Amino acid sequence: MPAMTDTNTKTNWKLTLAYDGTDFHGWQVQPTPVPSQKPTIQGTLAEAIAHVSGEQVLPQGSGRTDSGVHAAAQVASFTLVAPIPAANLLRALNRALPPSIRILAAEQVSPDFHARHSAIGKIYRYQIFQGTICSPFLARYVTCCHWPLDLAAMQQAAALILGEHDFTSFAACDPDRTTRMQSPHQAPRSNARHIAVSEWSTDPNTRILTYTIQGNGFLHHMVRNLVGTFMEAGRGRISPTSITEILEAQDRRQAGPTAPAPGLCLMQVLY
Amino acid sequence: MPAMTDTNTKTNWKLTLAYDGTDFHGWQVQPTPVPSQKPTIQGTLAEAIAHVSGEQVLPQGSGRTDSGVHAAAQVASFTLVAPIPAANLLRALNRALPPSIRILAAEQVSPDFHARHSAIGKIYRYQIFQGTICSPFLARYVTCCHWPLDLAAMQQAAALILGEHDFTSFAACDPDRTTRMQSPHQAPRSNARHIAVSEWSTDPNTRILTYTIQGNGFLHHMVRNLVGTFMEAGRGRISPTSITEILEAQDRRQAGPTAPAPGLCLMQVLY
Repeated sequence: MPAMTDTNTKTNWKLTLAYDGTDFHGWQVQPTPVPSQKPTIQGTLAEAIAHVSGEQVLPQGSGRTDSGVHAAAQVASFTLVAPIPAANLLRALNRALPPSIRILAAEQVSPDFHARHSAIGKIYRYQIFQGTICSPFLARYVTCCHWPLDLAAMQQAAALILGEHDFTSFAACDPDRTTRMQSPHQAPRSNARHIAVSEWSTDPNTRILTYTIQGNGFLHHMVRNLVGTFMEAGRGRISPTSITEILEAQDRRQAGPTAPAPGLCLMQVLY
Repeated sequence: MPAMTDTNTKTNWKLTLAYDGTDFHGWQVQPTPVPSQKPTIQGTLAEAIAHVSGEQVLPQGSGRTDSGVHAAAQVASFTLVAPIPAANLLRALNRALPPSIRILAAEQVSPDFHARHSAIGKIYRYQIFQGTICSPFLARYVTCCHWPLDLAAMQQAAALILGEHDFTSFAACDPDRTTRMQSPHQAPRSNARHIAVSEWSTDPNTRILTYTIQGNGFLHHMVRNLVGTFMEAGRGRISPTSITEILEAQDRRQAGPTAPAPGLCLMQVLY
């Protein structure tokens, strides 16, 4: 009974990993890789796992991150036949990976854990640098904005997305690339998401505006489209209260531009 | 009298610049560039100056930084015929340069100012990360050290280089690549340097050990060779007091290994 043996002896792994997304073409392995293209996080991780365990697996992330987007604590899951102690897997993977990807934790989890399906929420952070000259040591992790932004207006706009809303207006136009935290048994996907935290803060010393958002799921480009729209409110180009109308319109064209990738970081996946 | 006109109308410029050295092949333009090689800071800056002013100049740095070494405030000088307001030159250069190089200040200075010859000292910082897993957001700017280091022993060793010493034991074996802050009228170069600050500090929150050194000049690899030797003392492989004997030996083989480039940052050039 090879199938049964196989299932019984495989270990389900949960990795928590941080990465600097600048030099990667996003999380997801590309179906037809271009030779000159940057590597992907998923592909680089799969290679490291193969190097360490000799097994070819495709680690499943909690969701995709776009090219240039960072993660302080992305979560990935996969199964291995090889019986490797968790501490050894952690050490060996970090030895095999480039310094721009670090495994922070490796845990053996129950067979029903899945990095994406089991997730019940995520926290993202977006950083905007408001100074004139952005330090090269900061440039990879912030979006520079040279015009002044009205933090009160951005905060007012951000508060209007709290609770459950249809975020079609803030989704990229490729709906099949949306992700949602749901069990496979749930109803077909909708663009409704629940937002528990949506707030701006500022550090006058660093001149960095930080946006924090926690939701039960995010559509493709949703955080960057929200931030781009909040920045329009901060710049005085739209009224902060227009966020409500934009949500109701369910029309991407009503919202602001997609904010650049480098300011975005996946901070935590909630299970 | 074109020569005189030329001298009279040229402006001598002093630039203060920061850079993330990770993706550069050091400061210095290479005599025979290899196509696959990383660009240099000096070459990238020269291209930006040519783009902005239409003039081909080779900006002179206060000294070379090696491949992978960073600068928080390197200084470069060069002359231009084009009469450009300082604020415009600053803005235009930052527009032409990659985000990994930022001009922090552009000043018109007297014709006798020279970034290297006029310098009377420099401050460098070296950072060592003492944790097990180094964040990808930190990895470019620190050297990771997994074994424990005795800070008291490193501090004791560091204090022994204060004052004037011959640093031959801590110089790379290519003496023509040494730099010294001296006027062209001074005696022939020696390997004697005066060190005003040499100290270690630690931040338990970040687990980063920081070495700060201020001297009137530095030989090639001198800071990294000092740090590599202090780490040997911190690891208990040599006695902290052996620094004195190593200095006296004037023999590179007596000192420790060259510490890796990424931990090093040129913090300030003194004039």
